[in-house]
Amino acid sequence: MPTWIGEQEIEDLAVGAALLGTGGGGDPYLGKLMVQKFIRKNGPIQLLDPSEVPEDQWVIPTAMMGAPTIMVEKIPNGDEALKSLRLVEERLGKKAFATMPIECGGLNSTIPFVVASQAGIPLVDADGMGRAFPELQMETFHIYGIKGTPMGLHNERGDYCLLETLDNPMLEHISRGIAVRMGGVAHIAEYAMTGAEVRRTAIPNTISLCIKLGKAIREANQQKRNPIEAIQRVTRESIYGEAIVLFKGKVVDVERRSTDGFVRGKAVVDGFEEYTGDQLHVDFQNENLIAKIGDTPVAIVPDLISFLDYETGVPLTTEGLRYGFRVICLGIPTPDIMRSPAAIEVWGPRYFGYDYDYVPVELMAKQGGGVR
Amino acid sequence: MPTWIGEQEIEDLAVGAALLGTGGGGDPYLGKLMVQKFIRKNGPIQLLDPSEVPEDQWVIPTAMMGAPTIMVEKIPNGDEALKSLRLVEERLGKKAFATMPIECGGLNSTIPFVVASQAGIPLVDADGMGRAFPELQMETFHIYGIKGTPMGLHNERGDYCLLETLDNPMLEHISRGIAVRMGGVAHIAEYAMTGAEVRRTAIPNTISLCIKLGKAIREANQQKRNPIEAIQRVTRESIYGEAIVLFKGKVVDVERRSTDGFVRGKAVVDGFEEYTGDQLHVDFQNENLIAKIGDTPVAIVPDLISFLDYETGVPLTTEGLRYGFRVICLGIPTPDIMRSPAAIEVWGPRYFGYDYDYVPVELMAKQGGGVR
Repeated sequence: MPTWIGEQEIEDLAVGAALLGTGGGGDPYLGKLMVQKFIRKNGPIQLLDPSEVPEDQWVIPTAMMGAPTIMVEKIPNGDEALKSLRLVEERLGKKAFATMPIECGGLNSTIPFVVASQAGIPLVDADGMGRAFPELQMETFHIYGIKGTPMGLHNERGDYCLLETLDNPMLEHISRGIAVRMGGVAHIAEYAMTGAEVRRTAIPNTISLCIKLGKAIREANQQKRNPIEAIQRVTRESIYGEAIVLFKGKVVDVERRSTDGFVRGKAVVDGFEEYTGDQLHVDFQNENLIAKIGDTPVAIVPDLISFLDYETGVPLTTEGLRYGFRVICLGIPTPDIMRSPAAIEVWGPRYFGYDYDYVPVELMAKQGGGVR
Repeated sequence: MPTWIGEQEIEDLAVGAALLGTGGGGDPYLGKLMVQKFIRKNGPIQLLDPSEVPEDQWVIPTAMMGAPTIMVEKIPNGDEALKSLRLVEERLGKKAFATMPIECGGLNSTIPFVVASQAGIPLVDADGMGRAFPELQMETFHIYGIKGTPMGLHNERGDYCLLETLDNPMLEHISRGIAVRMGGVAHIAEYAMTGAEVRRTAIPNTISLCIKLGKAIREANQQKRNPIEAIQRVTRESIYGEAIVLFKGKVVDVERRSTDGFVRGKAVVDGFEEYTGDQLHVDFQNENLIAKIGDTPVAIVPDLISFLDYETGVPLTTEGLRYGFRVICLGIPTPDIMRSPAAIEVWGPRYFGYDYDYVPVELMAKQGGGVR
């Protein structure tokens, strides 16, 4: 049974996607406004379970790439990603039966809805990251054998590019250079695949999970219940695993710089309540990568590390973090499909330059914290 | 009457193109070997006067872009630029009647011959720079209104890109980023235009001029005559103007660094003979940009500044200059089409960050040197 997505679902999606965005993926707020505008114009958008895509039909994922700090400053016209999808369609000689997110976290959970509404096609309830990640080869699509190109890139001026590479790391390398030169952000279509390939390589039902998470946070606030407990209930029943409170405290420092098409930096939080006297350090490259209390890691990529507002449980993005914010830091276990040795090689701690083995966040929590 | 280009003409072309390359454009040696291989296989290549191209037929120029220091280290397969031409043909829905150089200086005087031989098409005896320049909007094609895109880019691995931009400075900006990420060098096709547009915007007969210059240097050496006088005779009879000896001396320092897809640096020469006690400083960005004796400019871009071997008059490229080389520095006046106010804005001294007005080299020589 297809589901139809209206304005309220997009409202909830934006909140849940900020949580799974682990600080990155771009603030979904802008994308939310764009989708809601299109829903008011064209009506609800069809969300398809991966099992509902005919196996020989083509799905073309769409997204934005670049530094989230720039994404929130450069307002798009709205049709850039659709134009990139058309470029890929033309190259393949195939029409897109549906579009799909490449990541369910952040802004990129919403961009494909804009494309779906304009093209009059459904959106597949799945993605290739189960969260947000900073690079385009960090996709289950890549890990399980889908070719990323042909890739289309457009900017808001109307410059565009069709890219073909021999492998997906080169796709990331060249397209990142193009996005930088296009002004820091590009609107893209890539990893075109058949319905059969979607079922084999995508992480299922992550968009509906985002909607459930956003709804749970909203209802907890309306009913004056604890939003963290609501998040834990929803994650416990998903393919992820129960969210774990890692830290509570006040942000005392945020360092951010936009380099090479990414925003990199770190946040420092002074603990309060049971964490009084401790200090939390979180490093990010678009997304939060590692959380340490003192020198001890308590969560590490690809597990999800997210900051929430202490009062409301509303997730905070990297570019929204400010001195003085009172926050809760949550760790969420990633699904097993993202923890295979092949997957850890692509997006584990060592890829990002950390000299730690990957240890699941729920195991670190049981051990009282950390790889030592 | 079409001219047919064989192995000897390519030998001479490579020498003349190094002279008009003003130190940059890549050492033509590598390109020469490639063209000669194709001539041995496919026979002589037809060189067409611009007047011989039917006005509604399409000419698609081909070239390499990137840092010349990298060009001479990364040997191409030979069909990369042809593939880029095919990509542009496909996009335009037009077949190339001929190809053409974008610059007559350096390696890029030879690359289009490789394409012409493989595609079985003629090469137009004209170009868009009348020398070599470091950037792709530095073309008479751009200055006189030709759109640079669609542009095709290939690297030696097989990665490729089709680029469309709203304007030619953005073409340079994005494609430079792609060339860097492709490994420092890309093989390109761009500025597709009709025969009528070739006649309106290209600098005519620059390839045959290169061949004449190379032949004059070769024959002077064979006949033990002065090669500088031979160069002066050929340039005097061309649309350029008589070459002027700016300096004679020994190279005492060369500084080179590859940054942002360019090689930048400077050469210092201690004078001998009538220049004893003086020091020449030449700055380059791929090509030589300004020559000063002490603090006084004696030649400045877009006039041509070239180093020649003191004994043989054979031109030296930027990446070939070494400590201890005994050299002659020549200045050659550019054709008038390259000295219009619109042209000086695109490739004059101020574009390259020099706080000097452009003064023609022959005028500076008459004044005894320099803008003061």
